[in-house]
Amino acid sequence: MAKVEGILSVDNELFRTYLFYGCILALKVLVMAPLTAVQRFKHKAFANPEDTVMHKVKPKTQDNVERVRRAHLNDLENIPIFLMVSLAYILTNPAVWFATMLFRVFTLCRILHTVVYAIVVIPQPARALAFFGGLAVTAYMSVQALIYFM
Amino acid sequence: MAKVEGILSVDNELFRTYLFYGCILALKVLVMAPLTAVQRFKHKAFANPEDTVMHKVKPKTQDNVERVRRAHLNDLENIPIFLMVSLAYILTNPAVWFATMLFRVFTLCRILHTVVYAIVVIPQPARALAFFGGLAVTAYMSVQALIYFM
Amino acid sequence: MAKVEGILSVDNELFRTYLFYGCILALKVLVMAPLTAVQRFKHKAFANPEDTVMHKVKPKTQDNVERVRRAHLNDLENIPIFLMVSLAYILTNPAVWFATMLFRVFTLCRILHTVVYAIVVIPQPARALAFFGGLAVTAYMSVQALIYFM
Repeated sequence: MAKVEGILSVDNELFRTYLFYGCILALKVLVMAPLTAVQRFKHKAFANPEDTVMHKVKPKTQDNVERVRRAHLNDLENIPIFLMVSLAYILTNPAVWFATMLFRVFTLCRILHTVVYAIVVIPQPARALAFFGGLAVTAYMSVQALIYFM
Repeated sequence: MAKVEGILSVDNELFRTYLFYGCILALKVLVMAPLTAVQRFKHKAFANPEDTVMHKVKPKTQDNVERVRRAHLNDLENIPIFLMVSLAYILTNPAVWFATMLFRVFTLCRILHTVVYAIVVIPQPARALAFFGGLAVTAYMSVQALIYFM
Repeated sequence: MAKVEGILSVDNELFRTYLFYGCILALKVLVMAPLTAVQRFKHKAFANPEDTVMHKVKPKTQDNVERVRRAHLNDLENIPIFLMVSLAYILTNPAVWFATMLFRVFTLCRILHTVVYAIVVIPQPARALAFFGGLAVTAYMSVQALIYFM
């Protein structure tokens, strides 16, 4: 069985690809907080009394703000788990092209999910497809790694 | 002090055990989204206008849906942190049988937590015990690793 | 290019520093659940019917409870992503003193964020500064790692 030294090395193309897409996904999640802030200021809808002082309004919820927050929460439900599972998956020595494709599909699905949820609302099943595309990748990797490390 | 090569290797039984339970926990979290969807369809309680078109209802919240969502959020509050901390913990060279037992206790507690929270509601302290069982494992590992890497 | 064996080793000072601050951040997140529980009991504001039996009240939300919950969610939005990204970042061979400073700034910002959000409410921009301090560290590390692994 392969040693981790050969796999979790920055000389290993697949590990570098993992780190690259991991950083893209991290930046994607980081964007959600400023995106929420933009909606909060636009609609003057803040969560806390101390945030509303300058705006002379009371804390309230607002649909567009809540959409971004739900998209953000959906990221938290999927991305950290993917980052853990895909690390386990590359330790199973998958074909590099196939694993790279899975990273790309997941990353694309997550970006599209936010676009159709919180930026340009598109009728279903747009969001459902983006969501299940990402979920399918993570589930596949989890099952593969589970069998390998059983 | 032991090198990471010896520990973070797929030849290391404890690292394999970590990856195995990590995948189980990942799949456990992945199940929460479909479980939420089932409750949403059953009670016709959706979060977004575009989700309700087919059902001719307005977005609403519903208790059983919110229970699954809270169980899901509770996973997010505990599982990614556990996955990070338990990696630090196995780098402290713990006894394999003891670390394996901790992985099993945590995994069992998280599954029971969801069962008693969102599937078959059982009076307290069932959920509290499952919650604090998992929390105690993560806290113990964190403190052990913190002392080791101080 | 450096091999991971040299970097992800418990002999590597920076990796030990990463694990140390990772454990501090983990314990910081773990404290949020008991902190929420304290507020729930203090204000008799519980989320579930089975939690209120002893207190003879109905489930309700309460401002101070919700503040702790929002602080907790904000941790989940930032800390797991930081833990992933900072691992990628230390694989880029940064200066040890600089990376250590970034870990400290992030950890301090996250602790201050919770203090001013959920323990002693201080007027803005206290919370905003703590939040953006942490976000800036993670964003910087992500971009550095992204360029390195491109």
